[in-house]
Amino acid sequence: MQLELETKPGIHIVDITPQARGLQAARLGVAEGFVNILSRHTTTAIAINECEARLLDDIRQFLRKLAPPNEPYLHNDLQYREAPPDWPGGWEAAAQEPENAHSHLLSMVLGNSETVPITGGRLALGTWQSVMLVELDGARTRTVGVQVVGTQEGNS
Amino acid sequence: MQLELETKPGIHIVDITPQARGLQAARLGVAEGFVNILSRHTTTAIAINECEARLLDDIRQFLRKLAPPNEPYLHNDLQYREAPPDWPGGWEAAAQEPENAHSHLLSMVLGNSETVPITGGRLALGTWQSVMLVELDGARTRTVGVQVVGTQEGNS
Amino acid sequence: MQLELETKPGIHIVDITPQARGLQAARLGVAEGFVNILSRHTTTAIAINECEARLLDDIRQFLRKLAPPNEPYLHNDLQYREAPPDWPGGWEAAAQEPENAHSHLLSMVLGNSETVPITGGRLALGTWQSVMLVELDGARTRTVGVQVVGTQEGNS
Repeated sequence: MQLELETKPGIHIVDITPQARGLQAARLGVAEGFVNILSRHTTTAIAINECEARLLDDIRQFLRKLAPPNEPYLHNDLQYREAPPDWPGGWEAAAQEPENAHSHLLSMVLGNSETVPITGGRLALGTWQSVMLVELDGARTRTVGVQVVGTQEGNS
Repeated sequence: MQLELETKPGIHIVDITPQARGLQAARLGVAEGFVNILSRHTTTAIAINECEARLLDDIRQFLRKLAPPNEPYLHNDLQYREAPPDWPGGWEAAAQEPENAHSHLLSMVLGNSETVPITGGRLALGTWQSVMLVELDGARTRTVGVQVVGTQEGNS
Repeated sequence: MQLELETKPGIHIVDITPQARGLQAARLGVAEGFVNILSRHTTTAIAINECEARLLDDIRQFLRKLAPPNEPYLHNDLQYREAPPDWPGGWEAAAQEPENAHSHLLSMVLGNSETVPITGGRLALGTWQSVMLVELDGARTRTVGVQVVGTQEGNS
């Protein structure tokens, strides 16, 4: 199962808890198990925290200071990157790539997946916890994989 | 299954490996699978590392420098936060909240969960690895979820 | 199941996606489930990102700035560390330990494990995503656990 989302420019934090709960509930009969939520991109992250509006701005500011977009990153020298041999258009096409080394670095710091238990047929998150897609190089269309594994009700 | 722990003030790192092993062993018959350990709070984290006493102080110092408590975080302007509509007491009550934006940021950097394999009926951790609850805004009473999923012995 | 790898000195990022796919495919019949990849060491990490050569150097530079090796870490005062009671040779032996507090800190920031869904019998990674072992205190021989759990084909 997967979600598709449209994100906003720059760093954009999207609460995907409702969708994760919906997909999990659709897997009828899994009473005890896990939900794994994995972003399928290298410039996004998955995190669990509180979706309080002012905190979301603190997170964005913190991340921009941790890996500033305008440092002299090697990955952003697009003309020196080796395009894969089958890249259509060679490095001229690769030069259309975004300069997003900072987004990759932040993705690694935050992590690409979270795994949450299902107990009694429900996601066992705390009161203030939300599952967030953290867009680090928006705006884009993003895909998030949601996978449920567990034991059936009455069979645990 | 879940653990309850009392933490100390500020940043406090608690080795929860014995409790995780105990809960895992209590799920008799799971020979091959996973244990997922998820903190149910937004100002704590779960990490795996070495519980060497002097290293624990290095970790605390590193985290305090990474997100200093006294930066001008928006989340700490309690008077500007929108209380949820059903918040008892309005913003006067919300103003009793701790000023802990730095704790949320560190929770996101460290991550809220770890998943560890079970092989041959035992947690497959390395020699020096311990599972840690990292309290980032203590002292508090904290809850950690421990979920086991896997296949029965003789059935893998 | 586990991998053994030889790493290079300092920070060395190794793409272990082919081995992870190989071990996962060897577990015939798991059509829907998870693969968990856990490094068994306290000075390595597991991450998912893009293995572009120039980005790998950006990651190494970023990590060296985030936790510089030469800060005055307490863990590196080997003469003050309590050796475990059964440590052969006492603190003289412990004093042969590497000075690697920065490696432990980076391991905690990056995380020790990743969990990736299996759907339709294949690892559900995005186009540019690779699973990486991040060596933070090489050169060493390292072990990575790879555990597969899921439901059989035709049984989901």
